[in-house]
Amino acid sequence: VFKVGRFGVLGAGALGCFYGGRLAAAGYEVSLHVRQAAWREAIQQRGLKVSSIDGDFQVQPVVVTHTEEFEPLDLLIIGLKATVDLGTLVALLRPVLVKQAPKCPVLFTLQNGLGNEEMVAEACDMILGRSEGASVPIAGGIAFLCSNRGEPGHVIHSAHGWIKAGWHRSPIPFGTVAIVDAFARAGLSCEWVDSLLAARYEKLVWNIPFNGLGVAAGANVADVLESPRLRELARTLMMEVVATAQAEQCSLPSGVVEDMMQRSRAMGPYRTSMQIDHELGRPLEIRSILGEPLGRANQWGVPVPALEVLFTLVQSRARLFHGRAGGYWHAG
Amino acid sequence: VFKVGRFGVLGAGALGCFYGGRLAAAGYEVSLHVRQAAWREAIQQRGLKVSSIDGDFQVQPVVVTHTEEFEPLDLLIIGLKATVDLGTLVALLRPVLVKQAPKCPVLFTLQNGLGNEEMVAEACDMILGRSEGASVPIAGGIAFLCSNRGEPGHVIHSAHGWIKAGWHRSPIPFGTVAIVDAFARAGLSCEWVDSLLAARYEKLVWNIPFNGLGVAAGANVADVLESPRLRELARTLMMEVVATAQAEQCSLPSGVVEDMMQRSRAMGPYRTSMQIDHELGRPLEIRSILGEPLGRANQWGVPVPALEVLFTLVQSRARLFHGRAGGYWHAG
Repeated sequence: VFKVGRFGVLGAGALGCFYGGRLAAAGYEVSLHVRQAAWREAIQQRGLKVSSIDGDFQVQPVVVTHTEEFEPLDLLIIGLKATVDLGTLVALLRPVLVKQAPKCPVLFTLQNGLGNEEMVAEACDMILGRSEGASVPIAGGIAFLCSNRGEPGHVIHSAHGWIKAGWHRSPIPFGTVAIVDAFARAGLSCEWVDSLLAARYEKLVWNIPFNGLGVAAGANVADVLESPRLRELARTLMMEVVATAQAEQCSLPSGVVEDMMQRSRAMGPYRTSMQIDHELGRPLEIRSILGEPLGRANQWGVPVPALEVLFTLVQSRARLFHGRAGGYWHAG
Repeated sequence: VFKVGRFGVLGAGALGCFYGGRLAAAGYEVSLHVRQAAWREAIQQRGLKVSSIDGDFQVQPVVVTHTEEFEPLDLLIIGLKATVDLGTLVALLRPVLVKQAPKCPVLFTLQNGLGNEEMVAEACDMILGRSEGASVPIAGGIAFLCSNRGEPGHVIHSAHGWIKAGWHRSPIPFGTVAIVDAFARAGLSCEWVDSLLAARYEKLVWNIPFNGLGVAAGANVADVLESPRLRELARTLMMEVVATAQAEQCSLPSGVVEDMMQRSRAMGPYRTSMQIDHELGRPLEIRSILGEPLGRANQWGVPVPALEVLFTLVQSRARLFHGRAGGYWHAG
């Protein structure tokens, strides 16, 4: 029977450090792949500190600079930003898969938006060949988590933390129970849903308008809600996402649009990650949050005129102001 | 027979100083209403200097601070930005109309976009009452002019200068010939067109996408043309303007969209006035260039989804970044 005891985190930022830290605190073997030297040194020398609404804690996970250094893993959380490109992903995953094949770890991506499991699958096929690559178990999850990085080695967890997850391909027998159980032992709800795609679309109903308008209009959540026209545009975008989801056989809960608007009211002048990233000149998760949903709408012939314009403007602003489009992806 | 010999310019910026200057150079009486003290003093002390592709010249027009100071006029050019509100316009026009009624000057607005003649008409009605106000002759023109201000008292004229004009209401018998003739004596082509509205829509086919995307995407003309998606969005916006014009009984020349795209290629990285104004934090001509056309499209039931989004984003950016929406006007 499959057991999950050895965890790796690929691209351990605030999210990866939080989940990896909680799993380590629960007694699991955890290795974090950390890009920044200051963070690696801080964790190696003083441990990983998490200031959390659920209680502060400190752990001493293994830290690796290159993915070659990972010991064999049962599950690899992918915490990279969705701006990663296929070539980089292949380079990062290759040592892990080549070392462990055919007993590869579950690749569990917690990246935002659509198309991430597909990119992970494509990377597996490129690394191991199409037939062997297809046997790598791939799952995806939507993390409902508010966390951010403080000083090197210090993560602040300010709200939530649960995950909605599902298999993308090649599920491991008894794997679901094993994974859910492991997260539960770390005090984390990892709910396995029937349709990962539907759960991803449900999150996009919120993410597309608020991330997109954060960049195109420079509006935070309160700004969108306070302006009658921006609010109406957010609603239009939400309905376009719902229609696209329907074309992809995902029927979202009725009232999801009103529900999202309602929830947003409690958020105040919250700035989405995409708005902050744009203001700081960082790459934006345009492909996974806007481009991929738009491409699928176009593919199914769903009219999404507001999303078309929003995607074009966000992509243009990213390119014109910071010289990059954050994973340019030509939709439609 | 009506003669035009005494000109006034209300809101003499670069445009008003250029036309006023040329008319003064042709020997007409010209009075400029100039808002900025530095400009008034410079013109009074050293005259108005125009550096022009058609030949430099210097003239000594009358300069007024308040519109009360205007001597009786035959024609008043309105050179105010289209961001002016009705209350301000009424305050500026009242002394002129009250002094001259019932022999009011032709009010000739050269403001950008739609709805300017209507606002002038409304101001007349408010000042003189609906029945007497209706007798004030109102014309509008589209100025194809590249000019800007240098040091106080110095205007640079870099290209073009012709005007397409038409009556809005209460045309004066023989007035057209008199006005066209006066401008011709100043070396200016003022072509009287059958439909002022159609001419305004034709200019909007260019102005809406390039001014709007200058703000919403931060893109100059070359940026728009170089990006396949922005270029396509510009074309979509142009077609929406053409459809709105058609609903208003204005059939634009076939091929106007391709023609505008073609002409834009020669402009290079040209920044529209709206893009520059936004970058400098000045009020934007949102109402007349975007809001009024959108309102008319909505009124006629013409679907303009791209214009809807563009208007919302430009208005939001203006308000969020500079605390004003540049003549907010709630369309639809």
